[in-house]
Amino acid sequence: LIPTITAFAASPDRGRALARDMPVRWALEEVGAPHDIRRLSFAQLKEDAHRHLQPFGQIPTYECGAVSMFESGAIVLHIALDQPGLLPQAPAARARALSWMFAAVSTVEPVVLQRENTLFMERDKAWFSERLPMVDEQVRTRLRDLSASLGAADWLHGEFSAGDLLMVQVLRRLAGSELLAEHPNLLAYVARAEARPAFQRAFAAQL
Amino acid sequence: LIPTITAFAASPDRGRALARDMPVRWALEEVGAPHDIRRLSFAQLKEDAHRHLQPFGQIPTYECGAVSMFESGAIVLHIALDQPGLLPQAPAARARALSWMFAAVSTVEPVVLQRENTLFMERDKAWFSERLPMVDEQVRTRLRDLSASLGAADWLHGEFSAGDLLMVQVLRRLAGSELLAEHPNLLAYVARAEARPAFQRAFAAQL
Repeated sequence: LIPTITAFAASPDRGRALARDMPVRWALEEVGAPHDIRRLSFAQLKEDAHRHLQPFGQIPTYECGAVSMFESGAIVLHIALDQPGLLPQAPAARARALSWMFAAVSTVEPVVLQRENTLFMERDKAWFSERLPMVDEQVRTRLRDLSASLGAADWLHGEFSAGDLLMVQVLRRLAGSELLAEHPNLLAYVARAEARPAFQRAFAAQL
Repeated sequence: LIPTITAFAASPDRGRALARDMPVRWALEEVGAPHDIRRLSFAQLKEDAHRHLQPFGQIPTYECGAVSMFESGAIVLHIALDQPGLLPQAPAARARALSWMFAAVSTVEPVVLQRENTLFMERDKAWFSERLPMVDEQVRTRLRDLSASLGAADWLHGEFSAGDLLMVQVLRRLAGSELLAEHPNLLAYVARAEARPAFQRAFAAQL
């Protein structure tokens, strides 16, 4: 059985692999699993046929036999639980990797997305110049803690895991920003992950 | 081995069980696992001893033998993978429950927290009355999709799962707001979950 995942027919990120299909493609490349891509227009995302698979009208979805999933974090976890390579076997290390997966999508990503939304939707508002620094400070707080926790290590806890995969994918949204550049160890962490052959294959495939 | 979780010594929610120890307490009650609570002052959250367990200086943490975790969603997942009662056995149903777990913490919760932060931090700003409706609209979009997906069902997919637990815990943050009241099926869904004996026990314990 080969899974099918959905992606944007035309990604708004212009090839930077920031859309949510990327972590799923990357995870599938890490475990060496072949997969098919089904590309959807923005109009198709809002159709009932897609909402049946993805209640919020987003990408990606993952279909494989009887399994039908949504949420990139959940799909990466499903792949990691199913096939070796993305989660440690030892209970303590596995638990720590799960912690980092959720930290990526629920503690770090929300402040990064809030910043993107502020830049995208509020740039022409009178309050933009006063509010952006408030939003930036929330990102800075998270990055400071993340940088301190990573320290001089290659990965967040032992070997590369699904926790690193999701965290790097979040940090990649800040590529080129001064916020990320304030932490050389985070820049190196992202570069280390992007150098992985599986990342490279996934990146090339989504282009 | 009995796990120890951390909670606020004085929760800022004044007894409403909205802090992140609640989903963990609730999950432990659902699977019938005894547990110890260690209460921390706000000052203790920022100390190195705690940051070693929780890099972002938050609650809860979960310690059990060699396992040391953070992130309430990850801890609930760890409990659900370890003990029966919170995740279906069948692969397709399990995958769907994982999808809902991540949807709760990474698709619905961020817009709900953004609204809380707006009410808490921007109420005295000149832009408050113009920006709040923008923030509310993002919450409405998510609730509309969630309500449509739940429909007349008791739970998001088949039996009650960790996905419902995390989603209800997010929706509880909107208790009393008109945003939630616009969807009677979501109000009933929250009430149904809060009526579960495990929820009741966890709620009483955190008071």
